[in-house]
Amino acid sequence: MKCIMGVDVGGTDIKVGKFIDGKLVEKRKIPTNRADNGVYILNEIFNLVDQMSSNDEMIGLGIGIPGPVVNGVVLGAQNLRWKRMDVKQIILNRYPNIVCTVLNDANAATLGEMVFGGGRAYNDFVFITIGTGIGGGIIINRKLVEGSTGSCGEVGHLRVEVGNKRKCTCGLYDCVEQYASATGIVKTAIELRVGRQTKLQDLRVITSKDVFDLAKQGDDVANEVVDHMVEKFSTALSQIANTINPQAFVIGGGVSHAGNFLIERLADRFRQLAFFSVRDVVFELAKLGNDAGIYGNMYQVTQEIK
Amino acid sequence: MKCIMGVDVGGTDIKVGKFIDGKLVEKRKIPTNRADNGVYILNEIFNLVDQMSSNDEMIGLGIGIPGPVVNGVVLGAQNLRWKRMDVKQIILNRYPNIVCTVLNDANAATLGEMVFGGGRAYNDFVFITIGTGIGGGIIINRKLVEGSTGSCGEVGHLRVEVGNKRKCTCGLYDCVEQYASATGIVKTAIELRVGRQTKLQDLRVITSKDVFDLAKQGDDVANEVVDHMVEKFSTALSQIANTINPQAFVIGGGVSHAGNFLIERLADRFRQLAFFSVRDVVFELAKLGNDAGIYGNMYQVTQEIK
Repeated sequence: MKCIMGVDVGGTDIKVGKFIDGKLVEKRKIPTNRADNGVYILNEIFNLVDQMSSNDEMIGLGIGIPGPVVNGVVLGAQNLRWKRMDVKQIILNRYPNIVCTVLNDANAATLGEMVFGGGRAYNDFVFITIGTGIGGGIIINRKLVEGSTGSCGEVGHLRVEVGNKRKCTCGLYDCVEQYASATGIVKTAIELRVGRQTKLQDLRVITSKDVFDLAKQGDDVANEVVDHMVEKFSTALSQIANTINPQAFVIGGGVSHAGNFLIERLADRFRQLAFFSVRDVVFELAKLGNDAGIYGNMYQVTQEIK
Repeated sequence: MKCIMGVDVGGTDIKVGKFIDGKLVEKRKIPTNRADNGVYILNEIFNLVDQMSSNDEMIGLGIGIPGPVVNGVVLGAQNLRWKRMDVKQIILNRYPNIVCTVLNDANAATLGEMVFGGGRAYNDFVFITIGTGIGGGIIINRKLVEGSTGSCGEVGHLRVEVGNKRKCTCGLYDCVEQYASATGIVKTAIELRVGRQTKLQDLRVITSKDVFDLAKQGDDVANEVVDHMVEKFSTALSQIANTINPQAFVIGGGVSHAGNFLIERLADRFRQLAFFSVRDVVFELAKLGNDAGIYGNMYQVTQEIK
């Protein structure tokens, strides 16, 4: 049968989904081999894809890359140690008869959530994933907005503090990622627990899940940490809403597993911080988890085939 | 001959342009009558439009309103003292045989600059007008993005400080408008001149033009005021770029008359503050001045007629 592969390349692992008639029939994962500046990555994907297609005919492959993408060309992907690379051309050299699409990974996940997940009900929404970092994508009129250099939705780097208080991995300071990602939450927890009576003291290694669990149990300091995260993240959300006035925010990533405990606080503070005419935004949880990328990349190929 | 009216309603005055075959043939201005919650405004526009169309046949009227607009309905316009009003229906009741469009005023100006002004060369750009306040509009793929409640591009209310330092007319704190608009620049000047040797001391009333003129002449304190404005405005620009990754910023409004003296500083600081993959943005000055609105409203009607 005819199949389409959705490939989601991350800094840690690579997920491949095999779709027949729009249905996920098989899913596999391999570690991302970043040796020698990531030169083996695409070949290892090709091997996996060849195994998975087996007796079926692969007619399309959609791939998502953690970096800016313009017309199939990846401008650079730090987490893969890639510099500029014409990924689409390389894939089409290997598989000349298929349709190939290349997206930024967060944009692919956004498309996945639009078609199969938390964004199904909305014409205009912003997908934001809060994990180790914060990324996102923007849908306007049921279309992905990729941006002039494939970097729409770099919302993790919205500046929400002044005075260069926390340095970001991007080289800049005070990006929201440094306050509201899992990493940022842990930083705040380590700062705020000093000299305080809190169960956060009992932990040798703190995770953002610990913070939310303790906050839910009523630990005051853990709740302060959550409030701090909410303040910074809501500020970023208000900046996004003031700029593009979406109907909904679809929130995913590991930190979103804190669920309504987090979402309700975010929505409340957001409504205080956003301009009056853009406040009426629905908050939705993402639905596809780590599969959003493979779904989105598959969808992009099917649109291209049409 | 067939004519189209472009109407730009502001809090101070109302401008009407008469266009024949896309060319501006006549332009008039009346003061905005805000008496009795602005109930006379539309009738006064109708009277002016009737005078101006005279022997020509008005086939379309496009109007821009300083407030959020959805499907021809104005959700509210503080500067006109209007609450929710179905402006399109009221206009069509008066002129049943014309095509009528209603836009937010900043969005109309954005369209004007796209078709006839500083945005002609760009598929994706953000228009920002810096005057008494700061407003804007967003073009993606040569299309105006109006937003889910007609409030795309409310960039004057991006938050660029923390700690509730300056209260904004919108009720919130630390909006960029409070730092980078003409009003904001004057506030900063009054703060920074205290106890300092500067020609700003000689002025009984400071305007933003005074600040830029003195800065150009080398006045240190005036240059500090400009730096402060640049810091805050570039922060807002970086937030916009991180969100929607445009090709260009088109900057208009009274403050933009400071010209390249301002634009170059903005561009330099912006490139330091924006995420690496969205830094490559062209800075353009707007070209249509106060006529951007009438051009944009006229254009919107012609598109609707097509």
